[in-house]
This record gives sequence, structure tokens and C-alpha cells, in this order.
Amino acid sequence: MVKINVSGCDSFVKEEQYKQYVDKALAAWDTLMSEQGAGNDFLGWKTLPEGVSEEELSGIEEICKAWAAKGIDLVITVGIGGSYLGARCAIEALSHNFAKQLKRKAGDAPDVVFAGNTLSEEYTSELMDLAKERNTACVVISKSGTTTEPAVAFRIVKQYLEETYGREEAAERIVAVTDAKRGALKTLSTQEGYKTFIVPDNVGGRFSVLTPVGLLPIALAGFDIRAMLKGAADQKSEMYSKSEANSAVQYAAMRNLLHSEYGKSTEILLCYNPKLTYLAEWWKQLYGESEGKDGKGIFPASVTNTADLHSMGQFIQEGSRIMFETVVSIDKSAREVIIGEDPQNLDQLNFLAGKNVEHCNKMAQLGTKLAHIDGGVPQMEISVEKIDEYNLGSIFYFFEFACGVSAYTLGVNPFNQPGVEAYKKNMFALLHKPGYEEQTAAILKRIGE
Amino acid sequence: MVKINVSGCDSFVKEEQYKQYVDKALAAWDTLMSEQGAGNDFLGWKTLPEGVSEEELSGIEEICKAWAAKGIDLVITVGIGGSYLGARCAIEALSHNFAKQLKRKAGDAPDVVFAGNTLSEEYTSELMDLAKERNTACVVISKSGTTTEPAVAFRIVKQYLEETYGREEAAERIVAVTDAKRGALKTLSTQEGYKTFIVPDNVGGRFSVLTPVGLLPIALAGFDIRAMLKGAADQKSEMYSKSEANSAVQYAAMRNLLHSEYGKSTEILLCYNPKLTYLAEWWKQLYGESEGKDGKGIFPASVTNTADLHSMGQFIQEGSRIMFETVVSIDKSAREVIIGEDPQNLDQLNFLAGKNVEHCNKMAQLGTKLAHIDGGVPQMEISVEKIDEYNLGSIFYFFEFACGVSAYTLGVNPFNQPGVEAYKKNMFALLHKPGYEEQTAAILKRIGE
Repeated sequence: MVKINVSGCDSFVKEEQYKQYVDKALAAWDTLMSEQGAGNDFLGWKTLPEGVSEEELSGIEEICKAWAAKGIDLVITVGIGGSYLGARCAIEALSHNFAKQLKRKAGDAPDVVFAGNTLSEEYTSELMDLAKERNTACVVISKSGTTTEPAVAFRIVKQYLEETYGREEAAERIVAVTDAKRGALKTLSTQEGYKTFIVPDNVGGRFSVLTPVGLLPIALAGFDIRAMLKGAADQKSEMYSKSEANSAVQYAAMRNLLHSEYGKSTEILLCYNPKLTYLAEWWKQLYGESEGKDGKGIFPASVTNTADLHSMGQFIQEGSRIMFETVVSIDKSAREVIIGEDPQNLDQLNFLAGKNVEHCNKMAQLGTKLAHIDGGVPQMEISVEKIDEYNLGSIFYFFEFACGVSAYTLGVNPFNQPGVEAYKKNMFALLHKPGYEEQTAAILKRIGE
Repeated sequence: MVKINVSGCDSFVKEEQYKQYVDKALAAWDTLMSEQGAGNDFLGWKTLPEGVSEEELSGIEEICKAWAAKGIDLVITVGIGGSYLGARCAIEALSHNFAKQLKRKAGDAPDVVFAGNTLSEEYTSELMDLAKERNTACVVISKSGTTTEPAVAFRIVKQYLEETYGREEAAERIVAVTDAKRGALKTLSTQEGYKTFIVPDNVGGRFSVLTPVGLLPIALAGFDIRAMLKGAADQKSEMYSKSEANSAVQYAAMRNLLHSEYGKSTEILLCYNPKLTYLAEWWKQLYGESEGKDGKGIFPASVTNTADLHSMGQFIQEGSRIMFETVVSIDKSAREVIIGEDPQNLDQLNFLAGKNVEHCNKMAQLGTKLAHIDGGVPQMEISVEKIDEYNLGSIFYFFEFACGVSAYTLGVNPFNQPGVEAYKKNMFALLHKPGYEEQTAAILKRIGE
């Protein structure tokens, strides 16, 4: 379960102002809960913790078993944006830091790698080098089946699987997560007999980690998705209680106050464990895409400390005073490493002998908080007990619910992303896509060709 | 060699203003070249492309040979900040995307992994799991040998190597990059007989990638550091010619103009190849640490497209208008993947059949540039022919030189980082480090303990 601590902002904001913004956030909470606000046809994520059916969960578990029985050791997950970041975030958070380099042991879950999240030719080609060494399967995630990046990657992966294993066996090694009825990928799946899971119509990509979009790759990577949903469900019951103590209300209130009244343009999500680096990437999409519109929004950035204390640390301490920080703090480490005594003590570290490394990490975190507050950077803290499926489920639901509250507080529709089409239209015109003839002529003229 | 294109800013700035900022940047160029500016005792990086001696280079190559002869397949590189990011950036840019997962072949260079860049106990402990499976050596990089993160990690790695291989053999498997005369690591190296390389006194950490700090790990990973230095040397001769056409002058002028006259608080470094993700991390330290002081500085952020067009893309297109972009563009891909014809064409991609994937990537890049300009985001482009050691050397030198010019244009000392000490002092006090008794008492009182 997620705890919040906003005391690191106390010296920057007036108490009555904070109360005002808590009231604004409580009004936004009403808008979200009454489902009368903008984008209210995309609120399916709210009830996902209990909404994922036993049939879906056991269906996912059957895929894991069937592919284990085939000895699948590589799963290429094709998807972009919300069909990529949630699964990657969870898998990186829950995996051994060196999972990709350690010798594979019997019973190890397959490596899950990602495709369709780039148009880099080197990436796509080099991924096939890996596929050729492995016993490979594919999860393709696309509501329409026509989004360029995943569609290009899937053409290549599908062709490889059919050439390597034959069309019939390839169909056993491809699972699609797509629309329930419509779309190219749904049609193909029916034709080829792919197993399919559904992307609900009322859940936007960036809110879809607790649908099969996220749950299938996470389960294939060997993690307990039922525990993740339980963590989300317990978090949901907290989010659903209207109160000034509601952590989503507090987070939404403080970040909007710092932005609107104190001109903080940028929020830095901060962690002290490299496994959480992709949590920040998932969070950037969630908040950037939900709030970054109508010329508004808090710019989402991230650092991973203590590495970045020796990189962005200088700027955060003494540069332009445009940011506040939100730390994702983990109470307990899953490992223990005790620092040893060294008779020579040339490095002068014997004062740490007998202490564990995480103690130093925690003191770096506290020392940084105090230093940044002194430097003019307000800091909030979101904490959970440890990194596991349960707590990650809580974090996902917390940030999703708080995002809805925060975006309504800011006064934007949290659930659309009209700006994402702009580059696509230009790209299609430049690629001479049928139906874009006028735009093609116009854009070629614009670039002088 | 680096080319620059600032035409993506033309519609945002007045030509005479740009001329004014080019003049400011040319004055800053004079300050940098005359070596009369602030921080002028840290200009050793300027002459590194020819300054690295044949003795150092062949010394590095001898280590590579000696460790290859021992069958070393894992090199733990201990360092943080500038003693980490340059090597990681180069190794990720030059490596196969799936290098860590592909089967190792005879003659493969060792895996280079990083430590001492975090106080995460899980990371440190899990790194040792990997070391136990491998034939392991260590490069430890620290001027003083007492910086907390690398010193803690090196204690653990050194102890492991001595217990596993014996003290004498461990000394053959440890190379130190450190101060020429002083410091804990220098003293230890002399005692234990470690081979050592020098961190020059007049080169700051973030400018040290072309010293043994970066060159040794890059060479160990199997890359051609002589070609990298050649690329830097050729770039240097361009940087040294005073001209309005000088790409460093143009970059410094435009970014300062956009920041100072148009209120752009944030620069996003943008790439379309995931191998360059860590180039952005290296760049963030270089620019953030050089300019982020005295309450000044352009906030450095980054995205990797097209992935992030489905994440941060919405905010960049339509959110708060606080940013400009700098694209690092690569002319040629090292691989080719042709998109195939599909008789069914359910995904409607046959209009791309016969085209290679990189063509789509380039059209996405151009389409995004036009969309962002229309959305109010100025865009500069830094381009090189391809990703290789030569061009990466050029990029490193370009950004370093341009950083000096830009920071002098902004009016700050490019070469200090006074703010980095703030968290350390608090951390030492909280860890009860000898000599910090007063600060310990004060900080414990402050946090109410």
C-alpha cells in the first residue's frame, strides 16, 4: 500500500493555500467518482483490480504453461506506448538486475523482450539475431493492428516465426491482445487461430497495465499477476474514500499548488533503486499524456539516484528553480550486503563497517531531501514496503487514480491524447500512404521537394 | 564529423536576435580559447584528442590482451558520474542491442558492467551473483578513492576477487584509474601492485570520456579508441576555427537565445535509435552540471523516439510551451530490413513493401520535426554519418566544446560543480562519519532524533 508524505513541501507553501488545493482536488475526486467529467467514456481502469475475470486470468496462465511446455525461452512482445511501458516497468522492477546475463536455469521464465516500440532498423534487425538463437514466441498488442511501429515489427516477427516453425506452429506461438470485435489484428487472429485477449474499449493505453496488455507479458516473465491485482484492489479501496487524508488527493493538491501558485514547471520522479527506472518512464507517459495539452501541464522528468546525484544533482541543487521532486521510496531491500572492516582503511570507510549498503542508500536519500529543500526544491515522498507484485499493483493504481484527480484539478481531460496524431499524419503523408495524396503533395511542397 | 542545422528554429526567432547571440557566442569562444575565463584550470579536455599518449594507449591495449589471455568475460567498472556515463554511453551506442543476451562466441570482448554508480543494495548484491558465474576482473575509477559510492562497491568487489582468485591474482585483475600521485586509491594501487592509469588534474569528470576514465572500459568492451580519438581530433580542428559557421557557436547561440529571450526553460535531447539513449544521459550531466548553477541553466531532458512519441509526444506537441528540442540524427543505419509484401494486407502496410525500416524511421523523424514546429517547439539537428567510434568521438568533442562556449555565453563557470557536495555533507553527518560530529548533532536535531 502506498503512503504519502508531503512534509518536504511545508516550508514552501502556505497552509491555507494547501487547504484550498485540497478542496480543489476533492472536487476533482467527485468529478472522477461521479463519472460526469471530460473523457468519462475511458474510466474502465477504475474497476480493473476486480474487473479482470477469472477466465482471463486462467487464460493467461494457460498460455504460460503451454509455452513453458514448448520450452519457449524468448517472448517478443510487440507494442508501443501504453502497450509497452507498463509491462516493461513491471518486469524491470521485479527482475534480477542482471537477469539477462545470468545463465538460464531449468524452469526459468522466458526472457521477455520488446519490439514495435521503435522504427530503428538496427534494433529490429538485431532482435532477429536473438530470435534465431532462441525458442521464440510472440505477444502482439495493438487495438487496431494498424499502428505503424507495432504493425511493421509484427510483419517481420510473424514472417520469421512462420518461416522457422511453419504457419500452423507459428499460430501456436503468437497471442494477440486486441479489440474484442473489430480491427486488422482481430481479423487476422480469427483467420490464423491465434489465442486472443481483449483490450477493453473503455481503458486508454496508458491506463491498461492491469488489463491483459500488461498482465500477459508480466505473467509470461514469471510474475504473480493475481498478487498485483490484489495490491491494486487494496489501493483502490483507499482511493475510493473521500478524505483530506486520501493520498491521491494530497498528491494532486500539492503538485497543482506548486505548479499553479509557485511556477514550478517540472516534476522530477526520483528513485534510489535502478529497478524503478522504468517506473518513471511509465509515469511520464501517464502524467505527460494526461496533463500535457491545451498549453498546460507539469513537465515530467526523472532521475535515478545516487547515480544522478553525480549528474543532474548539480542542476537540481543550484540551477534554475523550476522543479519539485516526488520520491518513490522503498522501505525494505530484498537483499543484504554488509560492508566489511578493512584493516588498512585507506578509503576511510571503516565507520560504515558492519552497516549494510541499504543503510547508506537511505541516508543518501534523507541527506538529499534535506539538501534539496535547503536549495529550494520541494519534495514529496510516495513509499511502499518493498518491491513486489502486490506493492507494484498498489503503485500503479495510486498513480492512475491520482492522475485522474490531478488532471481534473488542472482543468484538462485526463483521458484523451489528441496531439499524438500530429506526427503520424505527417509521417503517412511523407510515406505516400494511400488516402493521404493531398497531404503528401502539401508536405512535399513544404519541404521543397 | 558533426553537422548542425538550426533552420527548425527560424520561424521562432528574429534573424537580428540570432546574430546578436552568435556574437555573444563568439565572445564566449574567445574566452574559452584564450583560457582566461572562470574555471580555466580545468581545460585539459580541449587537447585530449592528441593529448592521450601512445604509452597510455598501448598500456590500455596491453590490459585488453592480458585479460583476454586470462579468458576474462566480465569486467566490473566501478565509478560514478563522469567516471561512469561516458564509458556507458559509448559502449551502449557501439554494442549490439541484444549483446547481453546473445550467446558468447570465442573471441568476444568481455561484458562490461557498472558498479559504484548506486547505493542500491539489491544491485550490489545481484551483481555479485553474476560475478560468481563469470571469469571476472575490475576497473576502479576514482580520483580520490574515497567517494562513497565507488569506494563501497570497490570494497565489496575487491574482497570478492581476493577470496576467489587469491590476493596476488586479484591484483592482476584490478586496474585503477586514479590520481597521478595522491589519494587512497593511488596508495592502495602502489601497495598491491595494481596497474594504474591517470585521471588528469585539469580534466573534470564530465569532460573525461577521452581520458583512460572512458577509454579503458571502452577498449575492454572491444571498441577502437584510436578511431574515437581521431574523430575527436577532426572535430577539434573545426571547433578551433572562429566563425559564425562554427557548429558549437551556432548551437550555443541558438539555445541561449531560445532560453534567454523566449523563456524556453527546457531542452530535450532527442534520438531515433535506442542505442543513443545513454548519449542523452551523458549529455545531461555535461550540460546540467556545467550550466545548472547560480539559479541559472537550461533544464536538460531527453526522449527516445519513436517510443516516446507515444509517451512524452502528447506533452511536447500540445503541453506547456516551455521546451525546445535538439535531435541527434544518424544518416545511415548499419543494418537493413526490407518490409515484405503481404497478400492479405490486413495491416494496410503494403504501401511500405520494398521499403526498409529506416526509411520509415527517417519519415517519422521529419514528420515529427514539422509537427513540433507547428506545435510551437523549435528544433535543432545535430547529425553524423553513422554510429561508430570515429563519429562518437566527434560527438563527444562537439558537445564538450559547445558546452564551454554555451556556459560562458550564459555567464556561468562551466567547469565547477559546487552543488554536488550538499547531499554528501548531509549523508556523512547522518552516517556519523568521523570529523562530522557537529553536523551529525545538528542534522539529528533537525530531523527530530
